[in-house]
Amino acid sequence: MTETIKIRRPDDMHLHLRNVPEAAAFARASALSFARAVVMPNTLPPVTTPGRVERYREEISAAAPGFTPLMTFKLVPGMGAKEIEALSRAGALAGKYYPANATTNAEDGVPSPESVAKALGEMERLGLVLSIHGELPTAFCLDREAAFLPVLEGIAEAHPDLKIVFEHVSSREGLAAVLALPRNVAATVTVHHLLFTLDDIAGGALSPHFFCKPILKRPEDRDALQRAVLSRNPKLFFGSDSAPHPIKRKEGPKAPGGIFSAPAALPLLAEFFVGAGKVDAFEDFVSRFGAEFYGLEPNEGQITLVREPWRVPDEIAGAAPLLAGSTLSWSLA
Amino acid sequence: MTETIKIRRPDDMHLHLRNVPEAAAFARASALSFARAVVMPNTLPPVTTPGRVERYREEISAAAPGFTPLMTFKLVPGMGAKEIEALSRAGALAGKYYPANATTNAEDGVPSPESVAKALGEMERLGLVLSIHGELPTAFCLDREAAFLPVLEGIAEAHPDLKIVFEHVSSREGLAAVLALPRNVAATVTVHHLLFTLDDIAGGALSPHFFCKPILKRPEDRDALQRAVLSRNPKLFFGSDSAPHPIKRKEGPKAPGGIFSAPAALPLLAEFFVGAGKVDAFEDFVSRFGAEFYGLEPNEGQITLVREPWRVPDEIAGAAPLLAGSTLSWSLA
Repeated sequence: MTETIKIRRPDDMHLHLRNVPEAAAFARASALSFARAVVMPNTLPPVTTPGRVERYREEISAAAPGFTPLMTFKLVPGMGAKEIEALSRAGALAGKYYPANATTNAEDGVPSPESVAKALGEMERLGLVLSIHGELPTAFCLDREAAFLPVLEGIAEAHPDLKIVFEHVSSREGLAAVLALPRNVAATVTVHHLLFTLDDIAGGALSPHFFCKPILKRPEDRDALQRAVLSRNPKLFFGSDSAPHPIKRKEGPKAPGGIFSAPAALPLLAEFFVGAGKVDAFEDFVSRFGAEFYGLEPNEGQITLVREPWRVPDEIAGAAPLLAGSTLSWSLA
Repeated sequence: MTETIKIRRPDDMHLHLRNVPEAAAFARASALSFARAVVMPNTLPPVTTPGRVERYREEISAAAPGFTPLMTFKLVPGMGAKEIEALSRAGALAGKYYPANATTNAEDGVPSPESVAKALGEMERLGLVLSIHGELPTAFCLDREAAFLPVLEGIAEAHPDLKIVFEHVSSREGLAAVLALPRNVAATVTVHHLLFTLDDIAGGALSPHFFCKPILKRPEDRDALQRAVLSRNPKLFFGSDSAPHPIKRKEGPKAPGGIFSAPAALPLLAEFFVGAGKVDAFEDFVSRFGAEFYGLEPNEGQITLVREPWRVPDEIAGAAPLLAGSTLSWSLA
């Protein structure tokens, strides 16, 4: 008999679909695994206005019927209460804080929390989520997350009722800070930071498809994330940070950060949680804690995973998924 | 008036020319900067016999007249006193110890020091240099050098008169170990480990041309190397570890380790030593300490560097030199 897992349909609380012709295919790829996804706004041009929030939602919904995009906007200096209120009315659930120059398309990011203090105050009042890419880009790459933590702690202190998601937590320091802060501060965890390290980028030959921001870290960091996720802490939920880029760019002289992890995420997570004997923690991580934090109803229906070999496609719409061409031990039914 | 530096003609105490049609062009590129170079034996097939030592020397000498290759052989398990003596008679000055799987073409490397104990004893007796790639390949990439140090210390203890070069030292731990060991243990320092860090590979976009083994490390490691080299310690001398690979392979899905650093090495080192106000240390580092350690006469003649902008070529024989396309502030006269 084939081993199967049935869990409530999951959510991806951190997804990049980009603003390219292939976005429709990327959305459909996510829809195979996830009922909803928090869609990040660092497109070109960025999602900064109610009109763009609405248009981007319509594009994604049209491309992948039955898949619900949870919309975000990009915080930019100068946004005031009026802008935030309009974005909220347009259906945005979260505003994304990119420190200037921290990652892809973040050249126009936030120079300091003070520059967006009014926006943060209004988000706090309205119950919007502040989504943070927590890296100080001037620090050494492995230290950037830890170096950002005073900023996180400062925002949490200045806005005690603001719901904050410290995105793609990747380090022991970042994890410890999130766990030590009050309940309204949570973190997404990616499948790649949970399972891989810098060795997967640079331990053998250089593997650009494992390159992302924040960069994959030490085994001790990965192990700390694994222990924390297995402990079923409601502050930690799944966000893929899946970010497809053309294979040609990833395999070029200046590969952009970003791992196209959504297609392989559930099979890899199933293997991880089953291997640890914690299937219940799997469902909490991908289907419950994220929705609860955002104040959303859980999804209806279930998804089934089976322990059957599955070969990850070599490419989807010109981008190579995480572990492209490898055979995983679990697959979507 | 243009600022100039005249130093004795330098040596590169660690060079890869490979065994490819382009090796002749790579040798000529090195000959522009260096009078001699210790040529590494991890070619395909490897340099393991007197015949191959002689043939490889002839090929290099024919390709770059006036450039003297200092020959090495690759230590492989089972080599005995007889083989070592024959290699020495063929003119090899050093035997290279590659831990199995540590780097390019090291799949057939040394599984343990015990497996080459007889060869090491004979090298000690004959005054040959043991050249070590000091990494434990099963450790996390940033820790591999530190994890290898017990092996280095064990060899130095078992063979107290053996001249040992710990190649391309890259970490604070490796540096401290070499400095703490007796005078017959030295290290080469590359220009890339002296000037760059992991940020140059992965701090912005991913830059495969900065990828090498041992991997570039933290700023604290780079800074420790800089302080040590500026202190004019005769245990530390220049070896480029220049290792050209085709641009297409470096910019592919599985880039091999290796930085083609020889063409830009002297201009970059001039900038570093002049900037630190230590021109005398420059000459010691590139033209004196290496030859002294190997027991060679210093080179005749001088080389002149001028503070004039120089654009590093985009490619040389299909390989991209370190900082290809950038303009450096010093050049060869």
